[in-house]
Amino acid sequence: MKKIIGVLGGMGPAATVDIMAKIINNTPANCDQEHIPVIAVSFPDIPDRTASILSGGESPLNKMLVTLRILEEAGAGCIIMPCNTAHYWYDELKASTKTHFINMIEATCTKIVSEEINNVAILATTGTIKSGLYQERLKKEKVNFIIPDDIQQEVIMESIFTYKGGDEKRAYRLMETVITQLKNIGVERFIMGCTEIPIILSGCSDKERYIDATEELVRKVVAWYYFGY
Amino acid sequence: MKKIIGVLGGMGPAATVDIMAKIINNTPANCDQEHIPVIAVSFPDIPDRTASILSGGESPLNKMLVTLRILEEAGAGCIIMPCNTAHYWYDELKASTKTHFINMIEATCTKIVSEEINNVAILATTGTIKSGLYQERLKKEKVNFIIPDDIQQEVIMESIFTYKGGDEKRAYRLMETVITQLKNIGVERFIMGCTEIPIILSGCSDKERYIDATEELVRKVVAWYYFGY
Repeated sequence: MKKIIGVLGGMGPAATVDIMAKIINNTPANCDQEHIPVIAVSFPDIPDRTASILSGGESPLNKMLVTLRILEEAGAGCIIMPCNTAHYWYDELKASTKTHFINMIEATCTKIVSEEINNVAILATTGTIKSGLYQERLKKEKVNFIIPDDIQQEVIMESIFTYKGGDEKRAYRLMETVITQLKNIGVERFIMGCTEIPIILSGCSDKERYIDATEELVRKVVAWYYFGY
Repeated sequence: MKKIIGVLGGMGPAATVDIMAKIINNTPANCDQEHIPVIAVSFPDIPDRTASILSGGESPLNKMLVTLRILEEAGAGCIIMPCNTAHYWYDELKASTKTHFINMIEATCTKIVSEEINNVAILATTGTIKSGLYQERLKKEKVNFIIPDDIQQEVIMESIFTYKGGDEKRAYRLMETVITQLKNIGVERFIMGCTEIPIILSGCSDKERYIDATEELVRKVVAWYYFGY
């Protein structure tokens, strides 16, 4: 049977497009037919993840489950979810399906540990930061990390929502401000721990400083496709 | 019930990503939740369309039908197929489904007629050219068009397959050669009548010369989403 990657997408829609492009770029194909089969369900009406975590807004879980069921029915053999904050519900989603489901936070932290990266700043939504998704795992691995202060975190969040609202340039300027401040206090490496961030920063010149969670998730799922793990 | 766009994709996979990005860019949304629900099935193992048209290679129809069935089952309310050449089988696909299915060639020719564009060159796969998909419709509308000569057509085809094989720069150089030759004989407007071409030419500076079939299909499907036609 055909191996199919299922993308539990729409959070946001641009991140779904970004991960599909990255799957193509990470596939050693010489023609259409050698590329990897993908089904992407991008239902952007899934309630905002950060709002649900921080202030008890409507839970996105039910709508995520609808998307997951569509992917299962369509024959997906492995699920990926290009939204870091949505991984707050990862355990519940995983428990509800027999389909292999790769964890994006796990994939990113594996890279950090294996490359012995340290003193890394976590750039993510306030929902991801407050839920400690990255911190818990990094603490366990004894990796030192830096969390933006409250004002910086507000600017990061504004950048992300500004991008989602369609103003790419302002989103870039906002994100750049925080990154410059963090560089000024000695931070050299950054986790792009929100799927909008690699898109916002796609024009930046020092890509080697960044660990792109989307890219790490893609590496894992391409390995699943070719090698089954 | 939710209105969902279904993308019958994978021909090639980058064209599927391109149309999803163009749907986002053509949607007047201020946040994730205002974006349009999309299900994209990108199964790139669909047999090569031009090879089937020209030399009786395996027909892609059966595999296209498999994708169409997945989109129907998942609840798509309108199908789009980001591959001009695949429209050779459009009538058969449309006859096999009750779901609304927008024709990309039709969308592009409507734009040409409504803007009174004339003396336009058709840049497309050899399959699209030989099957006369664009020519028939343009003749009916009394639009003058130019077809690349056989050598130019071979270069266009090489550019498209070079892009699909992953060499973007060479693909661009090849396409540029033909376009320059056509400009030298007075051609001012070009139909990008293969979904790889707007990606190959994404860095070009004179975008106003080109009619992008993907973009025209997106305009139609966004209108379907908001206005139902």
